[in-house]
Amino acid sequence: MSELLDIAAAVNRLLRAENILLLCHKNPDGDTLGSAGALYHALKGLGKTVAVLCADPIGARYDYMQLGLFDGSFEPKYVVAVDVAGIQLFGDAVRAYAERVDLCIDHHGSNSGYADAMLLQADAAAASEIMYDLLRAMNIDITPLIAECLYTGIATDTGCFKFANTTQRTLLTAAKLIEAGADIVRLNAALFESKTPAQLAIERLALENLQFYYDGKCAMVCLTREQIASTGADCTDIEGITGIARAIEGVQVGVTIRQQPSGSYKVSVRTVPGVDASAICRRLGGGGHTQAAGCEILGSMENTRGALLDEVKKALCMES
Amino acid sequence: MSELLDIAAAVNRLLRAENILLLCHKNPDGDTLGSAGALYHALKGLGKTVAVLCADPIGARYDYMQLGLFDGSFEPKYVVAVDVAGIQLFGDAVRAYAERVDLCIDHHGSNSGYADAMLLQADAAAASEIMYDLLRAMNIDITPLIAECLYTGIATDTGCFKFANTTQRTLLTAAKLIEAGADIVRLNAALFESKTPAQLAIERLALENLQFYYDGKCAMVCLTREQIASTGADCTDIEGITGIARAIEGVQVGVTIRQQPSGSYKVSVRTVPGVDASAICRRLGGGGHTQAAGCEILGSMENTRGALLDEVKKALCMES
Repeated sequence: MSELLDIAAAVNRLLRAENILLLCHKNPDGDTLGSAGALYHALKGLGKTVAVLCADPIGARYDYMQLGLFDGSFEPKYVVAVDVAGIQLFGDAVRAYAERVDLCIDHHGSNSGYADAMLLQADAAAASEIMYDLLRAMNIDITPLIAECLYTGIATDTGCFKFANTTQRTLLTAAKLIEAGADIVRLNAALFESKTPAQLAIERLALENLQFYYDGKCAMVCLTREQIASTGADCTDIEGITGIARAIEGVQVGVTIRQQPSGSYKVSVRTVPGVDASAICRRLGGGGHTQAAGCEILGSMENTRGALLDEVKKALCMES
Repeated sequence: MSELLDIAAAVNRLLRAENILLLCHKNPDGDTLGSAGALYHALKGLGKTVAVLCADPIGARYDYMQLGLFDGSFEPKYVVAVDVAGIQLFGDAVRAYAERVDLCIDHHGSNSGYADAMLLQADAAAASEIMYDLLRAMNIDITPLIAECLYTGIATDTGCFKFANTTQRTLLTAAKLIEAGADIVRLNAALFESKTPAQLAIERLALENLQFYYDGKCAMVCLTREQIASTGADCTDIEGITGIARAIEGVQVGVTIRQQPSGSYKVSVRTVPGVDASAICRRLGGGGHTQAAGCEILGSMENTRGALLDEVKKALCMES
């Protein structure tokens, strides 16, 4: 297991580190990229050699973060993972570095402890929320660019301050980021109010494929790779539909199952407070947060649906 | 025109007032109800006789505000309107009181100045944001109930902190309301994550009826009263679809036209920064905010659509 660090100890290690590689999780979202981006610009501002590495391509919608991607031009001496709860989430392309992570900065209570040391705050809404406190403790000047990276992470991981992980700290941090120069009108428009035709198409598809179980307490969307391909949606677009099923009156567990290009089934589970999404997914080999978790299942759509419905039933404390 | 008051002057008048009637706008939303609810509980806490009046029924989803509705049991001596930009927005049922408003508390820059006196802050995201400062200046103890009324107004008028009217002040006020005891997990779930079958049905209908104009710069949803009736949607459900058209990549003006039970056409216009929604609607007899405005048009769907497209074209500064 990892050595658990507090903010001050993490600051010490980062200030001593040189030739730093920042690792994001695969299928990168706003939080893994935003917290990596903020730390990247902070360390660069301190004159350090630093770069960001992710197994998957990073969408053009995040270009404004100006991430410096790792091109092999230096030999990493210190490896930092941000927002990565388990080693399987790095992706095979970066596995070599994933096995030698010196420091992990994360907000997933389910973190497997794969890193040598860990700054873990499971009550933080986003890794970017922890990163703000870390950078302030490092006496980093929060530039508008750093503020926009951090705002992106916090806003995307909370559904723009709507999800159950949003706290007073979240709103206060976001207010400080506005003060530091984050242009939230532009960011919110880009992140939340700018659906592509593909996003609209996959939302429509999801609404048309909603199924209800257990007296409407569970809502499920199942999509084959052919259905997904017909919309032109990319993995970020697909992420966007994982909240639809849970956000229906009376629904306690929302499940989205989508077949991957490889044939496996990627499952996202969203729950209301009182039902543990992470427990449902852990029993199927995955993990995550109490209200938002995921797993990946091999087999057929029918088997996947059946396995999920069995676990959902247990989580709803129903007799079989 | 109204006498313009600052917070201190508005506090003085409210503290001197007795037998107070609080008026909301018709088709009541979270902000008119939340700011009225907060002021209602504050004035009641001061031992005053006070009640709330609205021309339309108030949805059961707002029951937690515990609004004391006007039942005629006292003769109003002081009438306060909250979040009501023009006298036509009261509805005929409360017209008698609407013509003798002593104080209007509002955040619409387009307010017509119908009240004797006005506390107007056009840069406030919601009337509830002004109300928080007003109640603090009155030395009111912000109880959890008052905090939940105000949070409702701020969160609903900003699309949960997503719309362009959200500022640092908005987030700081919301953080203070959490500190005062607002249960935002419960409120966000109820306000934003609890779609009824009717809401789902009207969203699907809206997505199926999207039309694009002017190279995709304008997106429009037109719904007849029969289409709306088929979904079972009420006026709050319908409000929920007004953001869909604008939230598409490349769209600068999103228009929703829905036929009212009376036959007239209710129009909602949402724009990106740089395009004035209020100007579009003002020329058609309506008004509102720079990025969110509305109007009501008599005639046919075709005429209404045509009139809107003409105004949208002007707003987009295109040659005719």
